Amino acid sequence: MPYNELRKDYLLDRWVVIATERSRRPTDFAKPKTSAASNCVCPLCVGNENMTPPATLLYLKKGERIVRSQDPQVGDRPKNWFIRCVPNLYPAFKPPKEPTDREKIFFSDNFGSAIGHHEVIVETPNHDESPADAPLSQLELLINAYLSRLKELSVKSYVKHVSIFRNHGIEAGASLSHAHSQIIATPMIPTTVQEELAASKTFHVANGKCVFCDILEQEKRGPRVVLENRHFFVFAPYASINPMELWILPKRHSANLSLKPAEKTAFALTLKTCLKALKELLNDPPYNYGFHVALDSLNSESYHWHLEVYPKLATWAGFEKSTGVFINTVTPETAAESLREHIRS
Amino acid sequence: MPYNELRKDYLLDRWVVIATERSRRPTDFAKPKTSAASNCVCPLCVGNENMTPPATLLYLKKGERIVRSQDPQVGDRPKNWFIRCVPNLYPAFKPPKEPTDREKIFFSDNFGSAIGHHEVIVETPNHDESPADAPLSQLELLINAYLSRLKELSVKSYVKHVSIFRNHGIEAGASLSHAHSQIIATPMIPTTVQEELAASKTFHVANGKCVFCDILEQEKRGPRVVLENRHFFVFAPYASINPMELWILPKRHSANLSLKPAEKTAFALTLKTCLKALKELLNDPPYNYGFHVALDSLNSESYHWHLEVYPKLATWAGFEKSTGVFINTVTPETAAESLREHIRS
Repeated sequence: MPYNELRKDYLLDRWVVIATERSRRPTDFAKPKTSAASNCVCPLCVGNENMTPPATLLYLKKGERIVRSQDPQVGDRPKNWFIRCVPNLYPAFKPPKEPTDREKIFFSDNFGSAIGHHEVIVETPNHDESPADAPLSQLELLINAYLSRLKELSVKSYVKHVSIFRNHGIEAGASLSHAHSQIIATPMIPTTVQEELAASKTFHVANGKCVFCDILEQEKRGPRVVLENRHFFVFAPYASINPMELWILPKRHSANLSLKPAEKTAFALTLKTCLKALKELLNDPPYNYGFHVALDSLNSESYHWHLEVYPKLATWAGFEKSTGVFINTVTPETAAESLREHIRS
Repeated sequence: MPYNELRKDYLLDRWVVIATERSRRPTDFAKPKTSAASNCVCPLCVGNENMTPPATLLYLKKGERIVRSQDPQVGDRPKNWFIRCVPNLYPAFKPPKEPTDREKIFFSDNFGSAIGHHEVIVETPNHDESPADAPLSQLELLINAYLSRLKELSVKSYVKHVSIFRNHGIEAGASLSHAHSQIIATPMIPTTVQEELAASKTFHVANGKCVFCDILEQEKRGPRVVLENRHFFVFAPYASINPMELWILPKRHSANLSLKPAEKTAFALTLKTCLKALKELLNDPPYNYGFHVALDSLNSESYHWHLEVYPKLATWAGFEKSTGVFINTVTPETAAESLREHIRS
């Protein structure tokens, strides 16, 4: 192949240059070791519960059991928690003070109020315990928290979409170093989500099947497989815009995030395996992950939830920002191979 | 305003949360001073011309005159240059080895060869002389180089778009510290460009005028003005996705980059004034800028070239990457006010 490859996303009208001509080995991106020590007080650590608003969801130790609770509005807050969801102190979106309708949120075509929710999910009492290192039991609790907050937020009348995501490392935008995820509920369907929903609907109308089920069948036979188990399929997508990008796709079709007990256990293991491989291969790189879900039952046949993991190993610069075309110096095939081999070894 | 504002772009279906609730003062972003000293040899400095391919365009000193030339393919390369354009050593897009047609570039709907051009424009012999500091005469030469390379590349049969951009600072993706711009010619119209062209065409059909001429009229009366002179209008766009973002819009309608002599002088001064204000206000922040142009005469009435400048002061994280919705903690009104006041003082 004398030229770099131009590849288009499965769904989006988004192109990437797979720069095979200046291709890099995944390990070229391994982060230099740094010894970061901060003396700041962590507002998410045990003992500092009063530095954040009352929790909307708590998983507490009660003897040998784990129970669900909320923080009291006043008074002492429990310290025996496993998981703690709290409103973001500086929310991008915040709840309405009174019941509201769409006209009161969007005042015009190009202006509205950022009504919604913005929460922080403290994943563990242990400051540095990211999903790559967490016990599977703790990850299952985290997944329960995702499911629980998603369910509660998505039924609110003014909420049209819920985004669950995780920023790992300061270079990936994590402003707090304590292991945490975030959840943002918005009063509109965001642009990228809307584009994915529309494109998968178009595919479904044309082909009578879900595009993600189709991607799974196609990719299973190819060179971009990272791992496969009974419930999940992990691969480096064909037109990855990030070096070492990977997607975790459930085998059971469901438009919204939905996990039966065995699937939950499998998802915890799959997530941990992937993030641990990235951590070990690239010396704990910064990354973002985000759940892609459809809340509206109109999309139940055409959409298929999944998790996209974006290692932050490159900088989008003037070309990417001006054109919406990306340059990726690690081929998805190389990314998949290195992850696959690491996981198998 | 009890809530953060949701704002949609003038053209794109792209929303931003203007996070007034956690708003930051522009000077909060001032970069800490660092004393970076590198011992590497700079391949773009005078004397190292043989470290790069032969130049496609040279502005040379000949006594008191400046003449246009190209590097010889072999032998000594001149060292008395003001501006030097060279093919990128690791091009994302590269020229075809033989004349080619569209079918030979795009083999399918989602795959093609990255045919095109990728050049580096060395802006000055002086390693650190960025446009904020360069003499106006040197900036006019740089603008001449932009115009000249744009013209030469855009007439090639396999080129559908030309992107001219500048990355300043390592955090904004500049892998070389010597002052340079880049130019990439692509075999397709990139996604964002296509969306802008389509939206401005739609506006033109509906309203019988250019949307950018309309934006200019609207914004001239408002709080987002940065500066205005006889030929250019600079403002912080309504739905800026970057803190301190600014756009330089020519008053004379033209879809493709086009500058009469007086406009060229005015553009050099306008560009320098804006970048100098950013540099002084924010202690030489990293930034990207990119020219937005339409090459095809089909867009000559509806599109309007301009330059977009994006200071790199925030990190796009899981939310932005998953949803395409952005969070900006500096209101465009505050950004414009601080730039305006700095420029006036």
